[in-house]
Amino acid sequence: MSTDESLSISGPLDAEELRKIDAWWRACNYLSVGMIYLRANPLLKEPLSTEHVKHRLLGHWGASPALSFAWAHLNRLIKRDELDVIFIAGPGHGAPGVLGPSYLEGTYSEVYPDKSEDTEGMRKFFKQFSFPGQIGSHVTPETPGSIHEGGELGYSLAHAYGAAFDNPDLIVACVVGDGEAETGPLATAWHSNKFLNPIRDGAVLPILNLNGYKIANPTILARISHEELEAMFIGYGYRPYFVEGSDPAEMHQKMASVVDEAIAEIKTIQKSARESGIAERPRWPMIVLRSPKGWTGPKTINGHQSEGSWRSHQVPFADAGTSSSGLRLLEEWLQSYRPEELFDDNGRLAEELRELSPQGQRRMSANLHANGGLLRKALKLPDFRDYAVEVNRLGQAEHENTKPLGEFLRDVLKNNMTNFRIFGPDETASNRLQAVYGASKKTWMADFLPEDEDGGELSRDGRVMEMLSEHTLVGWLEGYLLTGRHGFFHTYEAFAHVVDSMFNQHAKWLDTSKNHVPWRAKVSSQNILLSSTVWRQDHNGFSHQDPGFIDLVTNKSPSVTRVYLPPDANTLLSVADHCLRSTDYINVIVADKQKHLQFLTIEEAIVHCTKGVGLWERASNDQGQDPDVVMACCGDVATLEALAATAILREHLPDLKVRFVNVVDLFKLQPNTEHPHGLSHREFDSLFTVDKPVIFNFHGYPWLIHKLAYRFKNHENLHVRGYKERGNINTPMELAILNEVDRFNLVIDVIDRVPKLQIRAAHLKELMKNEIIENLRYAHQHGTDKPEITGWQWPF
Amino acid sequence: MSTDESLSISGPLDAEELRKIDAWWRACNYLSVGMIYLRANPLLKEPLSTEHVKHRLLGHWGASPALSFAWAHLNRLIKRDELDVIFIAGPGHGAPGVLGPSYLEGTYSEVYPDKSEDTEGMRKFFKQFSFPGQIGSHVTPETPGSIHEGGELGYSLAHAYGAAFDNPDLIVACVVGDGEAETGPLATAWHSNKFLNPIRDGAVLPILNLNGYKIANPTILARISHEELEAMFIGYGYRPYFVEGSDPAEMHQKMASVVDEAIAEIKTIQKSARESGIAERPRWPMIVLRSPKGWTGPKTINGHQSEGSWRSHQVPFADAGTSSSGLRLLEEWLQSYRPEELFDDNGRLAEELRELSPQGQRRMSANLHANGGLLRKALKLPDFRDYAVEVNRLGQAEHENTKPLGEFLRDVLKNNMTNFRIFGPDETASNRLQAVYGASKKTWMADFLPEDEDGGELSRDGRVMEMLSEHTLVGWLEGYLLTGRHGFFHTYEAFAHVVDSMFNQHAKWLDTSKNHVPWRAKVSSQNILLSSTVWRQDHNGFSHQDPGFIDLVTNKSPSVTRVYLPPDANTLLSVADHCLRSTDYINVIVADKQKHLQFLTIEEAIVHCTKGVGLWERASNDQGQDPDVVMACCGDVATLEALAATAILREHLPDLKVRFVNVVDLFKLQPNTEHPHGLSHREFDSLFTVDKPVIFNFHGYPWLIHKLAYRFKNHENLHVRGYKERGNINTPMELAILNEVDRFNLVIDVIDRVPKLQIRAAHLKELMKNEIIENLRYAHQHGTDKPEITGWQWPF
Repeated sequence: MSTDESLSISGPLDAEELRKIDAWWRACNYLSVGMIYLRANPLLKEPLSTEHVKHRLLGHWGASPALSFAWAHLNRLIKRDELDVIFIAGPGHGAPGVLGPSYLEGTYSEVYPDKSEDTEGMRKFFKQFSFPGQIGSHVTPETPGSIHEGGELGYSLAHAYGAAFDNPDLIVACVVGDGEAETGPLATAWHSNKFLNPIRDGAVLPILNLNGYKIANPTILARISHEELEAMFIGYGYRPYFVEGSDPAEMHQKMASVVDEAIAEIKTIQKSARESGIAERPRWPMIVLRSPKGWTGPKTINGHQSEGSWRSHQVPFADAGTSSSGLRLLEEWLQSYRPEELFDDNGRLAEELRELSPQGQRRMSANLHANGGLLRKALKLPDFRDYAVEVNRLGQAEHENTKPLGEFLRDVLKNNMTNFRIFGPDETASNRLQAVYGASKKTWMADFLPEDEDGGELSRDGRVMEMLSEHTLVGWLEGYLLTGRHGFFHTYEAFAHVVDSMFNQHAKWLDTSKNHVPWRAKVSSQNILLSSTVWRQDHNGFSHQDPGFIDLVTNKSPSVTRVYLPPDANTLLSVADHCLRSTDYINVIVADKQKHLQFLTIEEAIVHCTKGVGLWERASNDQGQDPDVVMACCGDVATLEALAATAILREHLPDLKVRFVNVVDLFKLQPNTEHPHGLSHREFDSLFTVDKPVIFNFHGYPWLIHKLAYRFKNHENLHVRGYKERGNINTPMELAILNEVDRFNLVIDVIDRVPKLQIRAAHLKELMKNEIIENLRYAHQHGTDKPEITGWQWPF
Repeated sequence: MSTDESLSISGPLDAEELRKIDAWWRACNYLSVGMIYLRANPLLKEPLSTEHVKHRLLGHWGASPALSFAWAHLNRLIKRDELDVIFIAGPGHGAPGVLGPSYLEGTYSEVYPDKSEDTEGMRKFFKQFSFPGQIGSHVTPETPGSIHEGGELGYSLAHAYGAAFDNPDLIVACVVGDGEAETGPLATAWHSNKFLNPIRDGAVLPILNLNGYKIANPTILARISHEELEAMFIGYGYRPYFVEGSDPAEMHQKMASVVDEAIAEIKTIQKSARESGIAERPRWPMIVLRSPKGWTGPKTINGHQSEGSWRSHQVPFADAGTSSSGLRLLEEWLQSYRPEELFDDNGRLAEELRELSPQGQRRMSANLHANGGLLRKALKLPDFRDYAVEVNRLGQAEHENTKPLGEFLRDVLKNNMTNFRIFGPDETASNRLQAVYGASKKTWMADFLPEDEDGGELSRDGRVMEMLSEHTLVGWLEGYLLTGRHGFFHTYEAFAHVVDSMFNQHAKWLDTSKNHVPWRAKVSSQNILLSSTVWRQDHNGFSHQDPGFIDLVTNKSPSVTRVYLPPDANTLLSVADHCLRSTDYINVIVADKQKHLQFLTIEEAIVHCTKGVGLWERASNDQGQDPDVVMACCGDVATLEALAATAILREHLPDLKVRFVNVVDLFKLQPNTEHPHGLSHREFDSLFTVDKPVIFNFHGYPWLIHKLAYRFKNHENLHVRGYKERGNINTPMELAILNEVDRFNLVIDVIDRVPKLQIRAAHLKELMKNEIIENLRYAHQHGTDKPEITGWQWPF
């Protein structure tokens, strides 16, 4: 683009503004190419030689130019209007397009002083990129200004909305890649606009970058008609603005004009809603930026199109360091950005271009919201003990375990009405947490009908987020947490697997942030309640039986993972309180919603949960001596059945010494060398003995216990029961029997494993077998379990 | 609806047709209510008493009426035009709306003779529903005519398209629930129309049922403007037809008219494309059916709206068996369908209504495509040995392991051009399977550009399915398999977790079908290749490192799960051939795409893969005697490093007796009592010894091996190395060292665990430590591994 040409293109930018913004963008692109190719001679002060080229070329060029293009134009408005904006880069492998701006704004050098704003700093900045042990080609936690890695695609837009909730002055600019736009999670995240309130929330400005290609394929949205594309975004509830082309000057003017309009529209929407106090769903603006993949890169390489093709996705040509033609191509490409106009002799961005960046925390690369831990305020928590259920005696009263938690969460909501939200897929009431509506209803910005008045619990101003998309909910929650707030997600246990991959990625983000990025402040933990668990799927059946999410959790870094299985309502309260106070973890709590017997008073619960694993004295009769058998359990239903088995043993074999151990904190079962919560060998031995049979009744897949505990001495005597994929439409007892976690099978297990019982207790074993048959028969005849199953008369 | 009223409503149905279709639908609704509430007196031959009501009321009413409404109208066209149609019920818990029609069509009684078409049969049909040990409220595998359970929401539409591919005469009617429509997978599955070819594929007719509510919330799509809704589906590329209302007579006429139009349009599209031979993407019709949730149920219950509200989702009122008002309400409701007009005295559907059903396999409940194993033809497989790479000596030549597989798959495609497809998210070439394009290109029905000619590999007629949505791909594949065809899915290992939940659900479907539904014929296995594995993420980094999908696989039923980790190209070929021949499994194959050393000739590979685990004699020097140590390995990179460690030991400690064991079939490591592929204790002991140290180098998370093998005697001497979430942008050797699966750490492991080496090999240990430091230093300096790392000189 020569100055002459650019003068003839009309738009909001005058010639000088156009020249500068284009220069700033050229500087970004220059840095992107430098990151991918150069290890020395960063400013081309000497003729480029193969010595200057990285030995191994890694990294991704294709998505980068459009990212820094959008960044440059957002900067113009941030400066002009003093906006508060964060930037989310959805396109995979787009890091160069974000790292460049962050370096030009000075943030990178502030955070990493050795990547200083001079020639040597730039050289290091180039070299570290996609280099072993250093930084990757995604917008990883090491990237200042980022709350979204983008290594796995699909979550940018949900993250953006999560960041915008309760941040009324924030605009979240979210570049969505057209590859990512094909994923399911992204395709439904557009509907997040039905949950954004223009009065109390900020705005999201989606910028769909149609660069046309993925790794090796065109993208769907770039290959449908303009009519369809426009209709789709109108259908999603947006007002789409199109910026299409490839000539930089034209594109600058178009983009400037469209960003002006979009920001003005956002302000108008917000002003009107805030002044009137009426929050109706507006048609929010969004931008479709159709620009070539690898924009400004070589047009063709070896006779094949490069710019505007999938061929520019990664490293456009690999022979820069090994062939003279490759080297020449690289040098021409780099020189096309005219670096001498962009950087001074010391490698510092030219003064006139420095002025284009906002200052301090207005810089998107330094916006505090993108290091949300700095803004985080601890929750004001009521005393969870006030929500306890009364427990007079072990296992007498029944309660829905999650209901008191709902009451506690209601008051957590009340006390923290701008920085705490609850997220669940249409199941808040189903999971018995409906008390929360007493503090705040469900967010709803779509249409209302008169009948919603009768129990709909919907409100424009609600803070309970319900949408039938676990992906969107968890995406919102992550965005909300990473910008410094607090949240609680609950879901049906089996369907937590829908977001397995999001869990993996968030765990990796936290692990890296916590252990390798010292400037990232601690964020609130992600709290996940799994309810409607495997053992209570009487009406949902086999598809709803899957306790395997916690298996996945145990694969991730011990420094960020916690799993709790509180056996009753009071222990659940104690665990939840602990989780809500914590930072930088993913806390997974497994607790069923149905009525269950209660075991511990709130004071006992606190002691038990603090230890994480403990001997229940009332259920034990080993009097501190060596027991004949250890009956261990973990999980609400597993605990009930283990306790019932212990009661049977007490009644029929009163001199059998049984030690009853309950586990709340699953990681107690790993050695403390493996997980910070783990038991020492000595502690494990003293609880579980070194040589006595341990019957372990577990909530989940039984082999998970072996996976955790295999290093302990008594592992060879550990006999675990758990869910074994045997189920259908079943009564609770029937399902327990099918998977052998029921009281009767547990008694048989004890008899089979305690040598002295094998003859003595033959009769009891027969009795148990009969009970099993009888209970199955009853269930199949009546469709329910025997009433006495829960109304057990405990002998202790 | 009285006959008088209905006569005044115009539409394609004459009065008699209208009367009959409404009666047939009333019969469906009657059956739905009966299933939920009744255990006796199914035809109300005597006054309803609490005795007749089920003790425990379970099941779901809300979604059912619209399902059978759609079914009834489809039947009309199937009969009239002799169509071949299958029905997919997306709405969760919609089984009554499908079971009813299937019973009325006689199919149910054919499949389950005790549910006969008479009073006693109907009583049993009612009682079994949502009853312990019997059938659930989803369209489970036990339901004739179903290929889609719908217990987990999101996959109906992808299943529908999968069924339609390569079935040119089939129409797949797919009712999508408006709850399900909020999920990510469903939201992007609408784009499947960019992959459906009107010449060689059948048609999908989506019927979006806006009943307005989920469990406890309104749905988004029911609460946006008509303008937005219409725009959205135009944007998705459909021509939406609207059927909206609640008056049955009006709705019958509207639906009949719209189904007429839609089917006519489908025929026109197909005819035009097939006659011209030109397959352009048409605007396929779809139907928006806006009808009340719980349609025709009680309008209000206890003063609250029921029909047209979320309150009718499940059992609308629970006191039918316990209060006289509840009983009366139920009786009135049942009588409102006028059962005496619908069934004869013996409980058989009235003759005039029987005529509304299609006959034989034209019935959607009996369509062969929905029991696809009956239509399945074995693949014509070329001899996989013809694709072998040459291997002269253990570990000399390097090959990309997946490349020969690509060549094999190319010819599988060639030989099976109407019943085999390959599915992968934009990564076929990235995973080095690009040879397949030699047989068939990528399906692409969106727009073409001139540059696609240059290597785009796109074709209207392609059979390689690439879209950046693992959900859609796996949904297509499942639909394709369950209708009797074959397929192969490949994806990046880490991102297989995106479809964890789909894997769980398909495994459950197969488990139930195989073990509990004898009339379901065997379907082809689902073959999943995980490539671009954890150990080769040099340029992608931490987010791309996750070998945990196979952990998940080991939680599901041993009767349907298989996991293979072939160490090189020839073993991969042998495994793939085996998998493509198998039925009713999910076969997961883990094999990296990068260049790796080759170990086995094709003949050796066959022997090794057939055994699944074996001793490699050339790498062993224990000469059939007791070794000092067992070096075991599983996975390509793990095998290379274990072999290199063995070579170091051979060189430095030639008299150390090392036995080298490689595992291809992961389930060999379970006892044969747990998995049909498992080893007997005797076999395990003879391979792994009963008392010698076993250093096990594993591809995945190390504790998975403990989870599998903990029952074996020598488990306590099993020392497993694997991925421990330590990584970033790393060279292969650096990543191996960080996770201690590298050759040097393995040698140290051996020294540490073989008592006699602890002093003798102190020097070697120091040497290894230095190697580790040197290798890390080299990687950080050069950005690559030392060249000699792969060019190892094996001493055997």
